[in-house]
Amino acid sequence: MAKKVLKFGGTSVGTIDRILHVANIIKKEHEANNEIIAVVSAMSGKTNDLIQQSKKISDNFNKRELDVLLSSGEQVTCALLAGALTELGLKCKSWLNWQIPILTEGENLNARIINMSILKINEFLSQKGIVIIPGFQGISRDGDVTTIGRGGSDATAVAIAKIFNSDTCEIYTDVDGVYSTDPNKIPVAKKIEKISYDEMLELSSLGAKVMQPSAVQTAMMYNIPLEVKSTFTNRKGTKIFNQDNNIDYTKSVTGVAYSKDDAKITILSVADKPGVAANIFEPLSKNQINVDMVIQNISSDLRTTDITFTIKRDDVAKTINILENNRNIKYDDINYNDKVSKVSIVGAGMVSTPGVTYKMFRSLADENINILAISTSEIKLSVIINEDDTLKAVKKLHTIFELD
Amino acid sequence: MAKKVLKFGGTSVGTIDRILHVANIIKKEHEANNEIIAVVSAMSGKTNDLIQQSKKISDNFNKRELDVLLSSGEQVTCALLAGALTELGLKCKSWLNWQIPILTEGENLNARIINMSILKINEFLSQKGIVIIPGFQGISRDGDVTTIGRGGSDATAVAIAKIFNSDTCEIYTDVDGVYSTDPNKIPVAKKIEKISYDEMLELSSLGAKVMQPSAVQTAMMYNIPLEVKSTFTNRKGTKIFNQDNNIDYTKSVTGVAYSKDDAKITILSVADKPGVAANIFEPLSKNQINVDMVIQNISSDLRTTDITFTIKRDDVAKTINILENNRNIKYDDINYNDKVSKVSIVGAGMVSTPGVTYKMFRSLADENINILAISTSEIKLSVIINEDDTLKAVKKLHTIFELD
Repeated sequence: MAKKVLKFGGTSVGTIDRILHVANIIKKEHEANNEIIAVVSAMSGKTNDLIQQSKKISDNFNKRELDVLLSSGEQVTCALLAGALTELGLKCKSWLNWQIPILTEGENLNARIINMSILKINEFLSQKGIVIIPGFQGISRDGDVTTIGRGGSDATAVAIAKIFNSDTCEIYTDVDGVYSTDPNKIPVAKKIEKISYDEMLELSSLGAKVMQPSAVQTAMMYNIPLEVKSTFTNRKGTKIFNQDNNIDYTKSVTGVAYSKDDAKITILSVADKPGVAANIFEPLSKNQINVDMVIQNISSDLRTTDITFTIKRDDVAKTINILENNRNIKYDDINYNDKVSKVSIVGAGMVSTPGVTYKMFRSLADENINILAISTSEIKLSVIINEDDTLKAVKKLHTIFELD
Repeated sequence: MAKKVLKFGGTSVGTIDRILHVANIIKKEHEANNEIIAVVSAMSGKTNDLIQQSKKISDNFNKRELDVLLSSGEQVTCALLAGALTELGLKCKSWLNWQIPILTEGENLNARIINMSILKINEFLSQKGIVIIPGFQGISRDGDVTTIGRGGSDATAVAIAKIFNSDTCEIYTDVDGVYSTDPNKIPVAKKIEKISYDEMLELSSLGAKVMQPSAVQTAMMYNIPLEVKSTFTNRKGTKIFNQDNNIDYTKSVTGVAYSKDDAKITILSVADKPGVAANIFEPLSKNQINVDMVIQNISSDLRTTDITFTIKRDDVAKTINILENNRNIKYDDINYNDKVSKVSIVGAGMVSTPGVTYKMFRSLADENINILAISTSEIKLSVIINEDDTLKAVKKLHTIFELD
């Protein structure tokens, strides 16, 4: 007998038929003598519908009330799934954000789960009851409804797995696991059986949108074993572990990720003195501009330097405007390229495998792909290239690192 | 300055444009220096959609969870209306069933509001805040979500008017008041300016579905002045008062109501002994069959009697089955007519006006309409007739009692 948290995403509960299917998955797990806590998302499309309705009223909709609005979506799924489980003859009960309660802190639309009461739910589990909990939401200390950001149902599932000390947390979704690259674009992409939290984080934050990155991070912090699997097939999923356990390091590179809609900005000949980076990036952060890679070249003249960074394409105009009005920095010029993408190879084994870096640069050169910027970490190597070269680069790297 | 409860029904908040319109009505009332508590229904069609979804899962959907499901509808309206009021620059806040809380007792899907906390809401009102509350729902002492039956938002509004001691309770709906009969079928129907609770009750329970009867009853018990008015016109509505105040008794009859889909069942030669009526009706009630009129004729032979009663047409087969399997009653035969309707004249002045009864029977006879059963109360006179004669009867009575 294990205590399991099973999380079902929006497409997994997108229609009544799918909810009935999910009820059967839960039934099987229950009959295998497991204690089940199911965490559910809103039916697919629902959250977007509600946001659309709010936008018809205001582009700057009252945030407190937007959380009241959006949280209704998961409530509906909870009730429908509970009804479906009852129909299968199972004992079950939905517990809403305020009934548990799921206590959060932080602002509306972007809260974090900090605690929840476990006594009553554990009692119900011990009586063979199946517990159903809405993802994505909680309440504040003041008793307001809060939500925890898009994709937040993953974070709810992991928080519940942690707080209830569950044996495993299974993320049921519409793909059957984590792939070595995007299987829709690169048909030779292969499913990864086991992956470390670190690698998963690098892959997910780089556009392999299987799980919400902050949920993976929480799982890593508390060493909660995750499994990503498909609601619609019986195939094995991808297990996400601590790096030390059972990971196959015979391959140096686990996956190739890429992001779209990036832009690169370079500030030329910035006066190179302490605090200059802070002076540049603080106003950007205050204006909610998310800076991804930052590369600072060594100054040639010891007094000035060039700073390059990447942002989302939509933020280019706003960013340049902020830079031009920033009186705390001096520079010669600003240039930008808003047609770039980032391609990364990820692998926990990279650090112990010599030549990975060289191999990547050589293979891109062989394809005549110009590298505009480079950034590296322990388990990741990213390059910025022209957007048009993205798929060519991903295919080449996937092949060269024996992932096909 | 007055404290006002304004209730907006499903069609009044049926689209985003209508919600914006409702926000403007509230703004006007607020600018007239009133303290406003708005009670809202689910957007029209929403509750039926949710019920349809539940029926795809089970015809006998888990009742606790059905309440969780259905209560989401009003939550959505609350949030959207609060967003719309914010956009108009007004201070406002939605308070959900559990945030107030609205305490109910009784079973799921059919609970009754028994109390709610007023301190925080009164404080917010005194700070010029507009309060938005979902109709139709509450929570139980155990902290489960409950709903209070279809049309229950009216009951919520009246309960709030009572508990918050408001000066008035205004029911905004898609008709502009209570009419002397159905204006859609009888074009000469006239809007009633003032009506007593009793008359309103008789009219509403007889099919003039402007307000939920139990809400009118509560208003009567606590003497809460009601006003039914249109969300879509600026026309005056219908005020509903205590019978003693300001009602115009120059007309003996206030309105002509009728119900459709009725059926009449007669049990012939029932053994006439104490307890026979109880023996007949108790099993019907236990099977959720709603019996409307009951007429027991004087026995001709002092040992047997005929009992006639009316029910909804859909219940005929079930009712006859229950009667035939009822071993506690003896009778000669059962017959039924499932093509009947009930036509009633209602008026608080009837009791003091001689000849109303005679006038009704005579005018129906003039139209060759056969009366199948008769039932009377202080302020109402109902006849069962063949369904085909319904509109002819209503028109005739409307004219004869000078309501055109």
